[in-house]
Amino acid sequence: MQVSVLFSGGKDSSLSAILLEPFFEIELVTCSFSLLPVGEVASEAAETLGFPHRVIRPDISILEKAYDIIMQDGFPKNAINFIHKSVIEHLASDENTSFIADGIRRDDRVPLLEHSQIRSIEDRFGVHYVCPLKGFGRAAVNELVKEHLVIEEGLSENVLKADYETELRELIKQRNGSEKVRDIFPTHVQSHIIERKKAIMN
Amino acid sequence: MQVSVLFSGGKDSSLSAILLEPFFEIELVTCSFSLLPVGEVASEAAETLGFPHRVIRPDISILEKAYDIIMQDGFPKNAINFIHKSVIEHLASDENTSFIADGIRRDDRVPLLEHSQIRSIEDRFGVHYVCPLKGFGRAAVNELVKEHLVIEEGLSENVLKADYETELRELIKQRNGSEKVRDIFPTHVQSHIIERKKAIMN
Repeated sequence: MQVSVLFSGGKDSSLSAILLEPFFEIELVTCSFSLLPVGEVASEAAETLGFPHRVIRPDISILEKAYDIIMQDGFPKNAINFIHKSVIEHLASDENTSFIADGIRRDDRVPLLEHSQIRSIEDRFGVHYVCPLKGFGRAAVNELVKEHLVIEEGLSENVLKADYETELRELIKQRNGSEKVRDIFPTHVQSHIIERKKAIMN
Repeated sequence: MQVSVLFSGGKDSSLSAILLEPFFEIELVTCSFSLLPVGEVASEAAETLGFPHRVIRPDISILEKAYDIIMQDGFPKNAINFIHKSVIEHLASDENTSFIADGIRRDDRVPLLEHSQIRSIEDRFGVHYVCPLKGFGRAAVNELVKEHLVIEEGLSENVLKADYETELRELIKQRNGSEKVRDIFPTHVQSHIIERKKAIMN
């Protein structure tokens, strides 16, 4: 069975792929709207992990709509969730996709699909959407990351990561300036993987 | 790292152990209040899977209190959740326990700990509580079960399983008769593992 793991180059999506590796054929998938070289950043991280990787480029109208949402709201949650849902639907509509995974943890609030949205996607597209870390808290994830990955952590404005936020920030910066980006996005710690520590035990 | 996987002999707890096996030292743990030989049933299933197994025997007062709850409510949910929480606390209070896992799926409603209960247990006892199947829907679980296990399915009154329900049903039967058990518990399909299909690929 093959699984397409949504991949940002960060610790959660990397660990998700590692946890699924003994049971699935792994493919890492990164979304880019081609505003920044996030596909290349993710591709390098994927090579470090030793997994095949591809970049999908959904229609720019998704990012445009997310821009409208975030400018209206003044905070990122709904815009990021909109991109997340749209990207999963884009991936699910590919007839070769059967399992889609992402790195959501137990305590994550954004991006997050509601149960009804998950069931709707699974039913409409005939796919399975799975979140290997959904039953793991932050501390448990950190224990596993420590065993399997070397990571670099930094503030979100300084680490170029292949997540939905990166290109949305860039679009706002281009249109409204850096000040507006800082107004809207709370600064938070991002991780980027540097090295995979060891192969799986068994 | 060692993980204690709560084990009923059914497909969900079996699959949870299999998913964690490449990353943890697995120990299967079954709770029994010694009303029925559920420990022995689970022990045989554990041997089939090839994992070490032990039976814990928390104080019978837990089952007594669950009996009071269910007789008051007339339905099983709160009583089963009470046993579940008490058993996890019993296990977490053992200083050798660091990770506790159970086989809750995405769509399971009983037994279920609330987020605040999970955080309280993790903080008070210094353990990690993880649910490897929490991010998997029923259909995705079934795909994985098909790859890794041969199971037998039957109605809950006919399959002797080592779950919390089994001994609670027995206590009600002893005190109030079989008719009362049928009044309170909806009949549902239970699984019991028969065979492990293959070793892990890697």
